[in-house]
Amino acid sequence: MSNPPLKRTDRSRVKRLPKRGHYDFDAVAAILDAGFLCHIGYVIDGAPLVTPTAYWREGRRVYWHGSHASRMLNIQAAGAPVCLTVAHVDGFVMARSAFHHSINYRSVMLFGSANAIGDADEKLAALKGFVERMYPRRWETLRPVNRKELRATTVLWMDIDEGSAKMRSGPPVDDEPDYALPVWAGVVPVRMVADRPTNDPRLSPGIEVPRGLGDLRHLGLARK
Amino acid sequence: MSNPPLKRTDRSRVKRLPKRGHYDFDAVAAILDAGFLCHIGYVIDGAPLVTPTAYWREGRRVYWHGSHASRMLNIQAAGAPVCLTVAHVDGFVMARSAFHHSINYRSVMLFGSANAIGDADEKLAALKGFVERMYPRRWETLRPVNRKELRATTVLWMDIDEGSAKMRSGPPVDDEPDYALPVWAGVVPVRMVADRPTNDPRLSPGIEVPRGLGDLRHLGLARK
Repeated sequence: MSNPPLKRTDRSRVKRLPKRGHYDFDAVAAILDAGFLCHIGYVIDGAPLVTPTAYWREGRRVYWHGSHASRMLNIQAAGAPVCLTVAHVDGFVMARSAFHHSINYRSVMLFGSANAIGDADEKLAALKGFVERMYPRRWETLRPVNRKELRATTVLWMDIDEGSAKMRSGPPVDDEPDYALPVWAGVVPVRMVADRPTNDPRLSPGIEVPRGLGDLRHLGLARK
Repeated sequence: MSNPPLKRTDRSRVKRLPKRGHYDFDAVAAILDAGFLCHIGYVIDGAPLVTPTAYWREGRRVYWHGSHASRMLNIQAAGAPVCLTVAHVDGFVMARSAFHHSINYRSVMLFGSANAIGDADEKLAALKGFVERMYPRRWETLRPVNRKELRATTVLWMDIDEGSAKMRSGPPVDDEPDYALPVWAGVVPVRMVADRPTNDPRLSPGIEVPRGLGDLRHLGLARK
């Protein structure tokens, strides 16, 4: 069974440069799965706030978490509308005129409202999913989460239902007469890389960096 | 004369982990100057939207731009409240318990409302500032901006006045008893790098990549 596409609504339809817009679920999921940092917008007293935070995806839901005391999470858990945006920069696009300079990117905007996980077991399972997503096979090695920590943590989720992906790739597109100009044009590709892990200064003697730990390709990072 | 700090208001004061909050202008400017991509939040019909876009700073103002036809920019140019957030991820902080895992980062949130540049000469000067900020010494090599392009472009600015910086650095902070556990802990540093520029397939023969073009350290990117 294929995944139904995302809902196109007045706010989710890509209006500027609509050919860059995509609504199929797999395209959206691929962009979400290529990163870990989103920016969540919400409204307090009519004014917007944008908070960067980590997210993860399971099926048709996107999750994020934080402190039980967080004003942001409490407002969101109460059902306020949110916008969750993810953007990956892939390159600087340099044209022969200033006007046609651009950026290659993959982005997703999701709209909806959040739900807090109330059940403790379900919350623990979600947090395990988060850690395993970030650091595969790490969860079982850690000191287990205790009840106090679980109570102090809020986990929110939102359906991946209304939204869109937007992306640009490839070389610059110049005005036709400008191609003859003696100006260098092209793309400077950029990407995030992980460097060699650094030990905690208080690491007990004899503990080695786990094999593959610095390999964060599953989070969209290349090894240096 | 030193730069006055940013205004601490109810929304700009860092409430979660307040020791991570900073309000001095130079700290905010340093984070802004170490990047090029922000996420701007605004409100339509009571609901938030978060759009990733390029920004640049001049003195105590932050600028962004886009199409004259952009709904986002038109709403913002009309004086709607905005939140401009910049976040740089520096590393994954891996502790001995799931709870104390974290991310090292530097972020800025700015609040206010935008102003559109009306005067054509002033707009052109701002766009030159943007291109020179992104690609030093490139502006003079490009086909000049024409009147149609200038009319089609909206440039907005906002005072760097109300907001804050927030950052975390350093190793994990574990619960004291957990330091004895046989679990690897430390930091996996991450950073953005620029790869070798790729020529536009339609580049005229004999045009070389300008010296230093792939060096985007001024945008916070390391050379591979």
